[in-house]
Amino acid sequence: MEVGFLGLGIMGKAMAMNLMRNGFKVTVWNRTLSKCDELVQHGASVGETPAAVVKKCKYTIVMLSDPPAACSVVFGKDGILEAVCSGKGYIDMSTVDADTSTKISEAVTSKGGQFLEAPVSGSKKPAEDGQLIILAAGDKGLYDEAIPIFDVLGKKSFFLGQVGNGAKMKLVVNMIMGSMMNALSEGLELTDKSGLDPHTLLDVLDLGAMANPMFKMKGPSMLKSSYHPAFPLKHQQKDMRLALALGDENAVSMPVAAAANEAFKKARGMGLADMDFSAVYEAVKVPKQP
Amino acid sequence: MEVGFLGLGIMGKAMAMNLMRNGFKVTVWNRTLSKCDELVQHGASVGETPAAVVKKCKYTIVMLSDPPAACSVVFGKDGILEAVCSGKGYIDMSTVDADTSTKISEAVTSKGGQFLEAPVSGSKKPAEDGQLIILAAGDKGLYDEAIPIFDVLGKKSFFLGQVGNGAKMKLVVNMIMGSMMNALSEGLELTDKSGLDPHTLLDVLDLGAMANPMFKMKGPSMLKSSYHPAFPLKHQQKDMRLALALGDENAVSMPVAAAANEAFKKARGMGLADMDFSAVYEAVKVPKQP
Amino acid sequence: MEVGFLGLGIMGKAMAMNLMRNGFKVTVWNRTLSKCDELVQHGASVGETPAAVVKKCKYTIVMLSDPPAACSVVFGKDGILEAVCSGKGYIDMSTVDADTSTKISEAVTSKGGQFLEAPVSGSKKPAEDGQLIILAAGDKGLYDEAIPIFDVLGKKSFFLGQVGNGAKMKLVVNMIMGSMMNALSEGLELTDKSGLDPHTLLDVLDLGAMANPMFKMKGPSMLKSSYHPAFPLKHQQKDMRLALALGDENAVSMPVAAAANEAFKKARGMGLADMDFSAVYEAVKVPKQP
Amino acid sequence: MEVGFLGLGIMGKAMAMNLMRNGFKVTVWNRTLSKCDELVQHGASVGETPAAVVKKCKYTIVMLSDPPAACSVVFGKDGILEAVCSGKGYIDMSTVDADTSTKISEAVTSKGGQFLEAPVSGSKKPAEDGQLIILAAGDKGLYDEAIPIFDVLGKKSFFLGQVGNGAKMKLVVNMIMGSMMNALSEGLELTDKSGLDPHTLLDVLDLGAMANPMFKMKGPSMLKSSYHPAFPLKHQQKDMRLALALGDENAVSMPVAAAANEAFKKARGMGLADMDFSAVYEAVKVPKQP
Repeated sequence: MEVGFLGLGIMGKAMAMNLMRNGFKVTVWNRTLSKCDELVQHGASVGETPAAVVKKCKYTIVMLSDPPAACSVVFGKDGILEAVCSGKGYIDMSTVDADTSTKISEAVTSKGGQFLEAPVSGSKKPAEDGQLIILAAGDKGLYDEAIPIFDVLGKKSFFLGQVGNGAKMKLVVNMIMGSMMNALSEGLELTDKSGLDPHTLLDVLDLGAMANPMFKMKGPSMLKSSYHPAFPLKHQQKDMRLALALGDENAVSMPVAAAANEAFKKARGMGLADMDFSAVYEAVKVPKQP
Repeated sequence: MEVGFLGLGIMGKAMAMNLMRNGFKVTVWNRTLSKCDELVQHGASVGETPAAVVKKCKYTIVMLSDPPAACSVVFGKDGILEAVCSGKGYIDMSTVDADTSTKISEAVTSKGGQFLEAPVSGSKKPAEDGQLIILAAGDKGLYDEAIPIFDVLGKKSFFLGQVGNGAKMKLVVNMIMGSMMNALSEGLELTDKSGLDPHTLLDVLDLGAMANPMFKMKGPSMLKSSYHPAFPLKHQQKDMRLALALGDENAVSMPVAAAANEAFKKARGMGLADMDFSAVYEAVKVPKQP
Repeated sequence: MEVGFLGLGIMGKAMAMNLMRNGFKVTVWNRTLSKCDELVQHGASVGETPAAVVKKCKYTIVMLSDPPAACSVVFGKDGILEAVCSGKGYIDMSTVDADTSTKISEAVTSKGGQFLEAPVSGSKKPAEDGQLIILAAGDKGLYDEAIPIFDVLGKKSFFLGQVGNGAKMKLVVNMIMGSMMNALSEGLELTDKSGLDPHTLLDVLDLGAMANPMFKMKGPSMLKSSYHPAFPLKHQQKDMRLALALGDENAVSMPVAAAANEAFKKARGMGLADMDFSAVYEAVKVPKQP
Repeated sequence: MEVGFLGLGIMGKAMAMNLMRNGFKVTVWNRTLSKCDELVQHGASVGETPAAVVKKCKYTIVMLSDPPAACSVVFGKDGILEAVCSGKGYIDMSTVDADTSTKISEAVTSKGGQFLEAPVSGSKKPAEDGQLIILAAGDKGLYDEAIPIFDVLGKKSFFLGQVGNGAKMKLVVNMIMGSMMNALSEGLELTDKSGLDPHTLLDVLDLGAMANPMFKMKGPSMLKSSYHPAFPLKHQQKDMRLALALGDENAVSMPVAAAANEAFKKARGMGLADMDFSAVYEAVKVPKQP
């Protein structure tokens, strides 16, 4: 099976490699073409432009860093709009908002192509191991055809209906993540100020009904005030804002998420925007007195 | 090793059985003595009164339902105060508040006895399987001597320092649980009102970094509006109130827990006090319009 | 002094009348021209189009209902852009957002004209009595020249600096209003459920340091569940959302306003969007049980 | 009319003086008897003990600083319980909690006396000017008899029903006060960080529907970070906690008050407990970065 792959950042490279390891023939493209070299050594072909890749392959996957990058590869010179047509499937696995997704979808389908948004949950390691969670939405026919691809890339894929639903589901998940991170932060601070050992709290949590990988991974580094950004706080706060806005559209009142969002804002005001989102713990702490 | 055991409710019976299966000689007592019969068939002895049990055994464990029951067995007629003395260890595994624990501790130690509070996390099944989590605090010497007992009853025991710390740690854990339950409820409602399937949200959550046994267990029944009380909402709300009060004492600001607490209050106002604490979902939902 | 006046709705008509009563010569225009008749009977001239009014008058005031109306009078056919030029002052007293205001400002100034946004606080009665509060921002020179106009229309005018600041100040004021309305609602419900008389609470409040016209005016009708819309709840909630967004831009954490906003959302979910914003009281109440 | 008066602190002295100026014969007592001197110069008699005052006077008013003081004058040696009997009215105008009030009420009525709790709203100046607000509850007959006294001391008195209701009404009022103070603080910070002048916000507020004496008085000093304690922050936070607890008893969900309470806790954690409650503004501010 021949697959095009646009975007060879940390995630894209791991995913393209993974596809090749599993028998797919892959044609790659990257804005900085030299980034294709390693893939070529493992057997990939190179497309000169996004349009060239689409021309060659029935299915093209894109994995870019943000909405502007995702748009430029579609609408720019030699972009995929110049080649996409009936019989071509375009699968955008970048994390973009519902509006961007819809805009790209309309452009692709107006040319006769099929479109799927398919943002993923998971970072570098799951990408390498084919353990991503894939939140697909858009063209159901394309989704069904893409299942062999998704089976390689992810441990599980979901088809969520119309374009935009993938982005929305990711917002809801990240909103819950942000509230849970605040719950943990408040708990750690409460133990600390009550004369209990927050490390013990982590141990107790990890043995019980609330045990989860995030608490296990983030908890110990939070207690060392170590916030190397796996997921920057400003992005977490932006996702909470967007989730609350989604609630606003639908008249859903979410006071816990709203309180968590204000704590992330407080953390931003403290200069922690570029640290890991777990740095909200610093905003929860009782300030040290001079 | 000879151990006394007071209180043969659901939890106590499972724990006493477990001790016997693991080679302990157990002398039991229960307010309704007939409840001892099944244990006796498995080899237990019976003590006529709490005092009689303490007189006979070096270590006595108590597992009762609430503070008044825990107190009556200590301070009442034929209570353990009439027999406890130097060389006797008294281990209260009931869930009581820090003040009750302290009161019992002072009474026991004033008679020369040793005291340990040791509330547990876990319900019937973990009790039967020896998979409880034990939050012990009080006399460190007694804790060290009791380790063979705790090794049988629990998968892990913690020694948390002075009496009251066991109760406090449990409050912190339950506070985090309450905030997480609200985070989940808000997420389920947001998916539902945004045209996404809340069952899918549960599936996505269960595959990612926030996967935890509570979401997995409670989520599906919440979507069926099924709230058989494993842990009644009014008790959850009481624990949140007490955790917030502990924060108040120590000037810890916890806006997320406070918002969660108000949602549980709202649920109580809706008549859900005696349902499972996951019924807070009903208070989070957008009201149906007539 | 010759003044143009565009927009003769409830507010605009009252303001134009007031100007005439105080000796201004006024040339009016309204989309439905017949609405000009009453003003003409009191001595007003009529302009056929917005452009015609601007051509005739050195200063033109506009008072329209929303951003689209405010824009159409500027950018539409025979709009003011066709006539505005150096020496002409354009004063937009409609309530529009900062972005709309900036867009109109740039268009007017690019033609050489001077621009002032000047949203007002106050409704029909203060408009008739010249008791509005005027929040002006933009061209300081024009503001200084317009003071005789503002002295007639308002009891007080403020110059707030660059265009957009008038809109922002109004958001902050309305945010405080929304939080206060929630504070009152919670207080009324707490008295009611605690066996106290909420009418007495209103009386006590009105005698003390928190006495304010809003509590005095809204309180009694809230207790009658009477919510005739002086300011619709959906607009109040929109302003809270925009105020929180302004805080988001500037990393200001506002947990009380956020909680109040979620209560207004809840009220929207209950179908109260078009009632007065004081109807948030219904969302605060403990639900009646069946 | 002969009236006893126990407690000559700032408030009590002003009130007793006021009674004498209005023709009442007053017999005073104070723990430090020398504090009676000034009153004696204006014509007061002195009672040697609380019991002696009660013995002499049909009505005795007490105005003490806190529950322990209010109790000691009742239950202590030579306390009023030694003299109170049928035909004697005891009016406690101290600010005490509902439980203390109830305890004193039961003691007084068990001796045959009549009891009224009557906490006041207002500070030194209103006390001197007879402009207090009086929240009375307890014996209605005594209330009716005491009206001539209350007419002198206050601008308005309320009879609120059973003992405890005066204390509760004060909690509700103070809860609203705390939420409003947070609303103002958030608004001031939002203007400041958005490039608007917070002084202007105060001016705009003072002209509109939310104008109130508290904003007018506290606002300007908050902008100077001047927090001389008229009402200490720790007392405000305690009252919010108690109001939330009253809501808890009655299943009233109050998310705005809860958020405000957490902000006051944050302020306590910052070391502001003994400053004026308006110092919560410091906890609302975006932290200055190093």
